[in-house]
Amino acid sequence: MSQPLAATASEHFRPVALEHASRLINHGPTVLISSAHGAHRNIMAAAWSMPVEFTPPRIAVVIDKSTWTRELVKQSGSFGIIVPGAARMDLTYAVGSASGRDEDKFARHQIAARTGPVLGMPVLEQGCAAWLECRWLPQGQTEDAYDTLFGEVVSAAADVRIFENGHWNFTEDNADLHTLHHLGAGKFVVAGNQLQARQD
Amino acid sequence: MSQPLAATASEHFRPVALEHASRLINHGPTVLISSAHGAHRNIMAAAWSMPVEFTPPRIAVVIDKSTWTRELVKQSGSFGIIVPGAARMDLTYAVGSASGRDEDKFARHQIAARTGPVLGMPVLEQGCAAWLECRWLPQGQTEDAYDTLFGEVVSAAADVRIFENGHWNFTEDNADLHTLHHLGAGKFVVAGNQLQARQD
Repeated sequence: MSQPLAATASEHFRPVALEHASRLINHGPTVLISSAHGAHRNIMAAAWSMPVEFTPPRIAVVIDKSTWTRELVKQSGSFGIIVPGAARMDLTYAVGSASGRDEDKFARHQIAARTGPVLGMPVLEQGCAAWLECRWLPQGQTEDAYDTLFGEVVSAAADVRIFENGHWNFTEDNADLHTLHHLGAGKFVVAGNQLQARQD
Repeated sequence: MSQPLAATASEHFRPVALEHASRLINHGPTVLISSAHGAHRNIMAAAWSMPVEFTPPRIAVVIDKSTWTRELVKQSGSFGIIVPGAARMDLTYAVGSASGRDEDKFARHQIAARTGPVLGMPVLEQGCAAWLECRWLPQGQTEDAYDTLFGEVVSAAADVRIFENGHWNFTEDNADLHTLHHLGAGKFVVAGNQLQARQD
């Protein structure tokens, strides 16, 4: 088995102010959830996430109680969220289709990860639009009933070619970073055409 | 003030089997939340919703405790979810920018609504991709802490031109029904380019 790769920082990533962090998933992209505890780490895909608050930036995500990610989150109290770009569609689907319990998915898929600055969560930059590090906010009842976990974003960064000064900017030139939205069974739509609604 | 319009059924809408209902919001579209109780009804936009379970079909949505919708949901125990198409962008932003507490938004925006078959929630079909009727599943703790409400889908329907036999099908021909994804401040991306990930 090949070893996981350590990534160097992308020259295009910049920190995102925490008051803008919820905007990174405001439009419902399919994301990757990363986790780490001790010698273990994992990454999975999650179509089901959403912000729940802008300030402080808080989010909800569905992580099935059978998953290894769920165990690692409970052990470390943290998780990462990565917003993959369209160019990462095959990887997104692949890490969502197998468990990392028996095999390190970073090594299996040759994923070059960095370590998040505040919580040490694995984060991806190459081919991705953004990442967030979250501190788990335990809510036993909804975790048990609906596998819904809450978290507070404590650090975030994005590729300035598509998110800068707190705003998304989808153009034809950054199509590889356009976000993925999973329809089911490996079918995705890519969010591309950016429009402005009428302001009355 | 003009009166709310009653809509006739769209010839393109068909019932969606409940085991497929969560797929209607799997890819993170911005939705409209409808509510009704007694003589009152309301409609608002919500960027923050997600499925939490396929079977039974259950969803979570963030509805601020200051909103009139939240009051109506608590009174009736029900709410509707409408997935607007790209052609309804201006309406989506407009109903998300004002409260219906003082003025009926259906009348103000000349929205022709139907009445959902199971819970009597207002539902829209013209220019929309799908709708769902949900029974509220009270979860006091997360409602208080994170304005996050859960619901179980009890009826759903979609426009067969974009969702048929449980599957989405985004093409160039149904661009008006492509889903909206709110970036913030009236900026939306439209999900359009449908792709299939590699199946290993």
